[in-house]
Amino acid sequence: MTLSAIEVNHLKQAPAMQGVLPVIHHRWSPRAYADRPVAAADLARVFEAARWAASSSNEQPWRYVVGLRGSATYDKIFQSLVEFNQNWAASAPVLILGTARAHTSRSGRPNGYALYDLGQATAYLALQAAALGLAVHQMGGYNQQAVRTALGIPEEYLLGSVMTLGYQGEPETLKDEHMRATEEQPRERKPLREIAFSAWDVPADLG
Amino acid sequence: MTLSAIEVNHLKQAPAMQGVLPVIHHRWSPRAYADRPVAAADLARVFEAARWAASSSNEQPWRYVVGLRGSATYDKIFQSLVEFNQNWAASAPVLILGTARAHTSRSGRPNGYALYDLGQATAYLALQAAALGLAVHQMGGYNQQAVRTALGIPEEYLLGSVMTLGYQGEPETLKDEHMRATEEQPRERKPLREIAFSAWDVPADLG
Repeated sequence: MTLSAIEVNHLKQAPAMQGVLPVIHHRWSPRAYADRPVAAADLARVFEAARWAASSSNEQPWRYVVGLRGSATYDKIFQSLVEFNQNWAASAPVLILGTARAHTSRSGRPNGYALYDLGQATAYLALQAAALGLAVHQMGGYNQQAVRTALGIPEEYLLGSVMTLGYQGEPETLKDEHMRATEEQPRERKPLREIAFSAWDVPADLG
Repeated sequence: MTLSAIEVNHLKQAPAMQGVLPVIHHRWSPRAYADRPVAAADLARVFEAARWAASSSNEQPWRYVVGLRGSATYDKIFQSLVEFNQNWAASAPVLILGTARAHTSRSGRPNGYALYDLGQATAYLALQAAALGLAVHQMGGYNQQAVRTALGIPEEYLLGSVMTLGYQGEPETLKDEHMRATEEQPRERKPLREIAFSAWDVPADLG
């Protein structure tokens, strides 16, 4: 028996820690999307959020390509996805590719934080989407060279993730049984003692 | 005349766009910190936020080293900072170094998203800090080899940014005139038309 989207969202909710931003607790990465477009005003909000992320020397190396379903850009991004991702991402009304300028605008030196900062901006984007009732699912499973060629992206830009954006759909709309099962599993993360340390091998005492 | 912390926060506020998370509008990266420690419960909250970030194949490659003022870890991280950063970061009660495992735990292959995902987790951390009335300022200006040696960090872990964490202080406590001026400048970002595109060279129509 497949759970409903609402039931699934309860399962995906992170265990609450008082004072942690609610949007961090409830954001997750669904594979099932509703057949409903995203308003331009909401697209503006998710990119506005990305815009205000921090970056090394305020370089803001990020640059996003946005494809709305029915556009050539959407098709080009979609065609670059591996088959596994094509099987579910086809239900999303928006596909986005994140890119980052490889060199700094001031000195022209390699920017060692280009992808790191693209990650930061995309994290803002995904949290903002969650705040609007939208969902994002990032994918590394796509052909970088194919999408670079299809979209005419210069070598100067490094590629990050392709992501779906849209309103969450019912898990039962997923054709693949394994995907439906994943959609219904609680989110899992390492415990705090495996990510915060007071010395390299000593977990931090966080009370 | 130097502005107060409260006056500065008004200047740093991003122009509001209705529906964008307030914490994204008001987060910024101060250099002046108050002489006030951060409670362990709040440290737990900022790492709890990082913990729930998205990552490629849910690898969660991030691993943070946290130094509280007075500890050997704090001193080791501080000593690795370039002089410019030592001049202001000394007022922060907490210094954190972000690292990311270079290979995946499953297949042992290079994880091309290691630093990208560290950026995502650190973005969550910084937004959560802002939600708690704390502030984070990330720095690339430190000696990676020096901090790696001092903390005994294996080569398997890539280094991200060093960051200060603490309560914002009064700008007038900054010794350097240029730093005081920066502390009072509004935040600047590229316009939306330079970060969101419907094709590589065509700005997206966001209404």
